[in-house]
Amino acid sequence: MQLILETLINNHGFETSQIKTDAESLAHWGKDWTKHFAPAPSVIVFPKSTEQVQSVVKLANEYGIVITPSGGRTGLSAGAVASHGEIVLSLDKMNKIGEFFPADRMVEIEAGVITEQLQQFAEDKGLYYPVDFASAGSSQIGGNIGTNAGGIKVIRYGMTRNWVLGLTVVTGKGDILQLNRGMIKNATGYDLRHLFIGAEGTLGIVTKAQIKLERAPQDLTVMVFGMDKFEHVMHVLSAFQSQIDLTAFEFFDDVAIEKLMATGHVQEPFEARTKYYALLEFEAPYEPIMDKAMAMFEQCMENGWIVDGVMSQNLSQAAELWKLREYISETISVFTPYKNDVSVLISYVPEFIRDIESVVNSNYPDFEICWFGHIGDGNLHLNILKPENLSKDEFFKKCQSVNDLVFATVQKYGGSVSAEHGVGMTKKPYLNYTRSESEIEYLKALKQVFDPNAIMNRGKIFDV
Amino acid sequence: MQLILETLINNHGFETSQIKTDAESLAHWGKDWTKHFAPAPSVIVFPKSTEQVQSVVKLANEYGIVITPSGGRTGLSAGAVASHGEIVLSLDKMNKIGEFFPADRMVEIEAGVITEQLQQFAEDKGLYYPVDFASAGSSQIGGNIGTNAGGIKVIRYGMTRNWVLGLTVVTGKGDILQLNRGMIKNATGYDLRHLFIGAEGTLGIVTKAQIKLERAPQDLTVMVFGMDKFEHVMHVLSAFQSQIDLTAFEFFDDVAIEKLMATGHVQEPFEARTKYYALLEFEAPYEPIMDKAMAMFEQCMENGWIVDGVMSQNLSQAAELWKLREYISETISVFTPYKNDVSVLISYVPEFIRDIESVVNSNYPDFEICWFGHIGDGNLHLNILKPENLSKDEFFKKCQSVNDLVFATVQKYGGSVSAEHGVGMTKKPYLNYTRSESEIEYLKALKQVFDPNAIMNRGKIFDV
Repeated sequence: MQLILETLINNHGFETSQIKTDAESLAHWGKDWTKHFAPAPSVIVFPKSTEQVQSVVKLANEYGIVITPSGGRTGLSAGAVASHGEIVLSLDKMNKIGEFFPADRMVEIEAGVITEQLQQFAEDKGLYYPVDFASAGSSQIGGNIGTNAGGIKVIRYGMTRNWVLGLTVVTGKGDILQLNRGMIKNATGYDLRHLFIGAEGTLGIVTKAQIKLERAPQDLTVMVFGMDKFEHVMHVLSAFQSQIDLTAFEFFDDVAIEKLMATGHVQEPFEARTKYYALLEFEAPYEPIMDKAMAMFEQCMENGWIVDGVMSQNLSQAAELWKLREYISETISVFTPYKNDVSVLISYVPEFIRDIESVVNSNYPDFEICWFGHIGDGNLHLNILKPENLSKDEFFKKCQSVNDLVFATVQKYGGSVSAEHGVGMTKKPYLNYTRSESEIEYLKALKQVFDPNAIMNRGKIFDV
Repeated sequence: MQLILETLINNHGFETSQIKTDAESLAHWGKDWTKHFAPAPSVIVFPKSTEQVQSVVKLANEYGIVITPSGGRTGLSAGAVASHGEIVLSLDKMNKIGEFFPADRMVEIEAGVITEQLQQFAEDKGLYYPVDFASAGSSQIGGNIGTNAGGIKVIRYGMTRNWVLGLTVVTGKGDILQLNRGMIKNATGYDLRHLFIGAEGTLGIVTKAQIKLERAPQDLTVMVFGMDKFEHVMHVLSAFQSQIDLTAFEFFDDVAIEKLMATGHVQEPFEARTKYYALLEFEAPYEPIMDKAMAMFEQCMENGWIVDGVMSQNLSQAAELWKLREYISETISVFTPYKNDVSVLISYVPEFIRDIESVVNSNYPDFEICWFGHIGDGNLHLNILKPENLSKDEFFKKCQSVNDLVFATVQKYGGSVSAEHGVGMTKKPYLNYTRSESEIEYLKALKQVFDPNAIMNRGKIFDV
């Protein structure tokens, strides 16, 4: 390792400030938001250019050392955890926003740019970067691309994948590739860009991206509904979607609301609690859209689907209503939730939820379940809350056995064991619940093509 | 070959009507809309299921015979031409529309479904399939997926890729894979679906797809403008795009209009001809959108960007205006055009056009150029028209030399030698103008993973 670091300094222009080996740094950059694996990297390097990334990759190949690419480390699947003496390659110093192309509504950025920084840049240009989620203030674009990040606006704007017009990558073999170079239309052979998106740094390292921006949404309006039956949530989704382009359709249950209200930070939306809640958002720059929404709301009330509802009258009311959904994650974190991020076809969601609840309740009757998620995308966050009288270790052990039951149900519905959090290390044992053995063989063969020595984030997604 | 056909009949349920070897059939199913290569397949087979496709692929591997997958054969790059004794595998008999999932706005279809049939199905459900282009009445979804088809609505709705939620494929090795199974969010390893989209049947055969449908557009309104300078076309695009969500922004030049008017089938849009024309389309279900469009039009007139303009007042007027753009291809076909379908960043389009015109004019002053295309996507169709006094052979030979100049210019701007027509055989010699040597090596290695015996559409995209 010492030899590698000396070579980086002597031959590749690394300054000593671009290399850290102190214990505090190793602990800090060696882990993400998961807590299951102890960080134990050998060194943290902070390249400043694609060429410096390439030199690290080439040396890692030469000396057979594994690289863990590292962004904002907000991941929830231990995709960026380095626990086996790896070189952590942090993109922290590659955080420049480059050229902006107004006619293309496209901007070139380095992979270490923080998601929020890109959102802000877009806003300054009168435009919009629509991928948004709780960790946007810390997560980096490179990590977003590595996990094909989703979030709360997917129903309208799609995943990160939709906004990546081009990538610069260093493959596991050490080649620099410029993929798609910002074009909208380019039908010249396999689109390698899409292979790197969602690859969790196991094929190579994304160093730069060309990102498409969008027209900024106008007059966003939020409605929140209380409902008694889950089927009604789905009816309301279909009804509104047939008339209005939704920018969000989020869902949470009474457990989430109960914990949230106990904090005293958010106002109770309705006089009486209901079992389920939905938050929907849409652009309403024209009066008739508001009228349509009101008419649809009244019709859903008449049909008995909605028990109570509220609509924002201005942006600050909209922001207030969003807190009902946004504060949930933080609120339930004190209950040491065991989180699963799953998805199924939207059509299967009601049955799927029923099955999961029945499976968990019959096996672990003392476990409380809190549901929330992006129901307009078929994406549910299943949170099992720790009973007070159970130790953390005991609880997590039991949850591991719940996992098999939950993922068997996911498999029954042809769903995904990780909708938007990636596989990393935490979902690795369950990959075969979503991908067939035959598919996994192909994944491994692709890894072999780009990273024959398996130096790129080894041990993530699958074992080579 | 006889042995293969007997095995298909005896062991895999093929009826004799699913196999054709007569000369007429070989000529018919052996070619697409290109005319550069003489069709010479050995046999045409028409499987009725994914399993029958698999049996053909396995036998082809066993006997070392190449398969050319075949859809509507409307391609313009000879991607579906079989000229070397191949088995043509036609999807004509796999044309069923399967289950529809209203909550997901998703439908499962077989790869042989005609594009227009899918558009019609969507319309019957009150929805919309937004990929549309001239050959939609004949092209099949499998072929659309193989080339990642684009067309006239890409500026709003994106390419075919955006609408594919899942694929069933038979790989070149003969494995059946179900890719992504219709989910919007699924972060469980490399997304093989996107590798097969745009692969032109060289990795395997798409047999089924899960397709997302969209809300139907409302009150589509069309405007056509005449302009004197190409820069003005770009100014108008930017100006309108800042205010209105365009569903199309198409462009054509005076040469196109001149030939079109000579046919007498379409009405002259303005009293005086201009050098350039733009057609733009947007939804206008609310009065204020129309007002915005009118205000923007007036502003563009004041700025001197637009010389004359017209706006549709109803759907039939809109359809009439669309003919100005839609009839161009057919109109110029009598001039034996040499077509190139290229793209660059939108920001580079004006300079790029200037460069290409200068290159062609200085080398071939007797050639007339006709431009049209999807300028909102940076996608231009460059048509060189044959001078009357030049023989077809002589003309095409000269165009081949023009190619090197044109593609060198494409390369200079970092563009694509095939924006939406694929590579097939006609663009194969020019692949390296868009993809680096290093990238092409990776493409070949990926081919090796899915199709180690190179039996899938050998000779297309690149030589193995």
